[in-house]
Amino acid sequence: MNIPSVDGERLWQTLMEMARIGATERGGSCRLALTEEDRQGRDLFVSWARELGCAITIDSMGNIFVRRGGKDQDAAPVITGSHLDTQPTGGRFDGVYGVLAGLEVLRTLHDADIATQRPVEVVVWTNEEGSRFQPAMIGSGVFADQLDQGHAYAQTDGDGVTLGQALERIGYKGEVPCEPRPVHAYLETHIEQGPVLEAEDKVVGVVTGIQGIRWFQCKVRGINAHAGTTPMEVRRDPLLGASRMVEAIDRAARTLRPDAVSTVGMFRVSPGSINVINEEVAFSLDVRCPDAAALETLVKEIRLACERVAGDMGLQLEMDEIWYSPPTAFADPVIDAVERSAAALAHPHRRIVSGAGHDAKYMADICPTGMIFIPCKDGISHNEIEYAEPEHITAGADVLLRTILELAGQN
Amino acid sequence: MNIPSVDGERLWQTLMEMARIGATERGGSCRLALTEEDRQGRDLFVSWARELGCAITIDSMGNIFVRRGGKDQDAAPVITGSHLDTQPTGGRFDGVYGVLAGLEVLRTLHDADIATQRPVEVVVWTNEEGSRFQPAMIGSGVFADQLDQGHAYAQTDGDGVTLGQALERIGYKGEVPCEPRPVHAYLETHIEQGPVLEAEDKVVGVVTGIQGIRWFQCKVRGINAHAGTTPMEVRRDPLLGASRMVEAIDRAARTLRPDAVSTVGMFRVSPGSINVINEEVAFSLDVRCPDAAALETLVKEIRLACERVAGDMGLQLEMDEIWYSPPTAFADPVIDAVERSAAALAHPHRRIVSGAGHDAKYMADICPTGMIFIPCKDGISHNEIEYAEPEHITAGADVLLRTILELAGQN
Repeated sequence: MNIPSVDGERLWQTLMEMARIGATERGGSCRLALTEEDRQGRDLFVSWARELGCAITIDSMGNIFVRRGGKDQDAAPVITGSHLDTQPTGGRFDGVYGVLAGLEVLRTLHDADIATQRPVEVVVWTNEEGSRFQPAMIGSGVFADQLDQGHAYAQTDGDGVTLGQALERIGYKGEVPCEPRPVHAYLETHIEQGPVLEAEDKVVGVVTGIQGIRWFQCKVRGINAHAGTTPMEVRRDPLLGASRMVEAIDRAARTLRPDAVSTVGMFRVSPGSINVINEEVAFSLDVRCPDAAALETLVKEIRLACERVAGDMGLQLEMDEIWYSPPTAFADPVIDAVERSAAALAHPHRRIVSGAGHDAKYMADICPTGMIFIPCKDGISHNEIEYAEPEHITAGADVLLRTILELAGQN
Repeated sequence: MNIPSVDGERLWQTLMEMARIGATERGGSCRLALTEEDRQGRDLFVSWARELGCAITIDSMGNIFVRRGGKDQDAAPVITGSHLDTQPTGGRFDGVYGVLAGLEVLRTLHDADIATQRPVEVVVWTNEEGSRFQPAMIGSGVFADQLDQGHAYAQTDGDGVTLGQALERIGYKGEVPCEPRPVHAYLETHIEQGPVLEAEDKVVGVVTGIQGIRWFQCKVRGINAHAGTTPMEVRRDPLLGASRMVEAIDRAARTLRPDAVSTVGMFRVSPGSINVINEEVAFSLDVRCPDAAALETLVKEIRLACERVAGDMGLQLEMDEIWYSPPTAFADPVIDAVERSAAALAHPHRRIVSGAGHDAKYMADICPTGMIFIPCKDGISHNEIEYAEPEHITAGADVLLRTILELAGQN
């Protein structure tokens, strides 16, 4: 199999050109889903795809499919892609890289005049970030029949604009129904958004799945009292209790297994005045693990520990689960193909579980799916300073090209 | 010495009549300093004082002095009082009780036709609470030459109205300069605002002083990262660090001595999102102790413990002291007089240090000073549900009357 290399310089320039749409002062991009900036980004991408002579389909959720035909036009395609929308102060790589690496693969196939057995498609999913409309990954969710389109259309942004209205306004509400169809395999290239590959000097992460996520809202109630007149021994301070819970939550993940994480992110005290013992603390809990049973164990341990703290201190505790996204295991044939490609290209690589959600999560419900990670600087993402090295950008796209050729078949 | 009893029923009715001015839905009072409600409260008090034939003086800070002459008109007076302003959702007793207990003493002396050797005055101090204008205790602070009147006049409320303008608007900017003058003794009756007397079934607290207070603003900085993709062992979570500091702050006060307290009230995380490890936590620290050296030890211990946490976790810590109010010791002759009065009246009593600041703090700088505490329900104050039992209200006023007679002299 004679496989060309992608044009890393061209891919980098393409990324930088896209980044100029909605460019932020500190070097990032702001293209919230279905805004004018998102439209411009989509239009630019479509114009590039047209230059390759590809067929372009917009579905009823605004997902864009760019199709390069195969020798067997009726065969289920290999699809790759990601999203062009960003966080409000997003970076230049999250999502965009997966779309434009796909485009670079099409360009390379085009330039080398390589015909694949199966069609190859590059997809742009609508509203992956979930910043403007909730939930996140809404375009792929509807495509995979995991979310309802009517419900998706009715979601409103902060100004009361519905997703359906926003789709129409920017001219990306397509005629083709957004629904599952046969897909031979789905691949998504993405920056890791974590520090693991960088720390281990790996260039490629062979993603084996997406970890399970459970979210909780917690409330600790104590007794509001005067900071100056209430002796220590009669206090029921919910902040002291919540602090002990934060410690227990951290310890539980650390001691369970190396790939478990638990985080308290939101944390609000009330009334929050300098000379007052608080009445209530509300905090969020985010617990993740690639293994569902281990995740359950972790949650149970955390709940017990928090209840013990509350009981010992005479505090009231509420813990409400608000979201559960079960672990996703990617398909072995796709994982193995990615691994073979990285090995063939001699890129240092390791298997890794995705800590964040991606459109690949929903695609895994309807077809064999895999992901390719590359390192990002200091593990930082969802931030204007998000950065990936050009050679890693190129390496990831080369692995993608090789994997697509294996899965789509050449000759 | 033939000493009458105060009329407890009359005192209670007087308190309830005052509470109707600015009455809140949940049974409290809202008379922010120098508002229309405060004016009505002052006018009502002045009208009651006039009925007794007392001389009324308003000074340039709006402090009201009601004077009942003594046999020796040139002798330095015994002054008692407190404040009529309240917190936005304040109670019916904090401050008001000290003023109206003083009025009840004058009424009782009047009814019994008792002449004292020295003049007796009841004072209403301006803006004790510090809710509308900062700092708190501004009227007594200027009177005791501890705060500058020009500076006080220039303080603005949330609408940009200065204290000087507000004084003029309600007609309480008097001609008499607000400045120190000879005072034989100052006494202030007040609810405890803490749970100690109630817990020990004491009716009277013989206040020996006001504890020292030190306030700090603290900041803990870590590294902002993705909750799903950042392994536990590489995290620098400022919330985990701050939680350990809250624990250390609590432990330090508990183990130092029984009368030391430390409180974290304000506590803010940033960015505070469910799936993000925070970048920064800002929190306040309130440390109090009746003994200045012990307070210093406590602060040092807390600082060391917090620095140790930050050092161990690779976090940055800032701790800035923003206020220090040194401990105030009241005068032994006044403390002893209060104690003798409580004993003579057979009221269960104990010595106690005030956990909160009061106008008596500033008065202690210019004259022998003491305070009389009575219990309040569940130690709750600065709250609409603040409550004191009528029999304790009466007991405190009886102790005040007896102490005033001893200090002012009765033939």
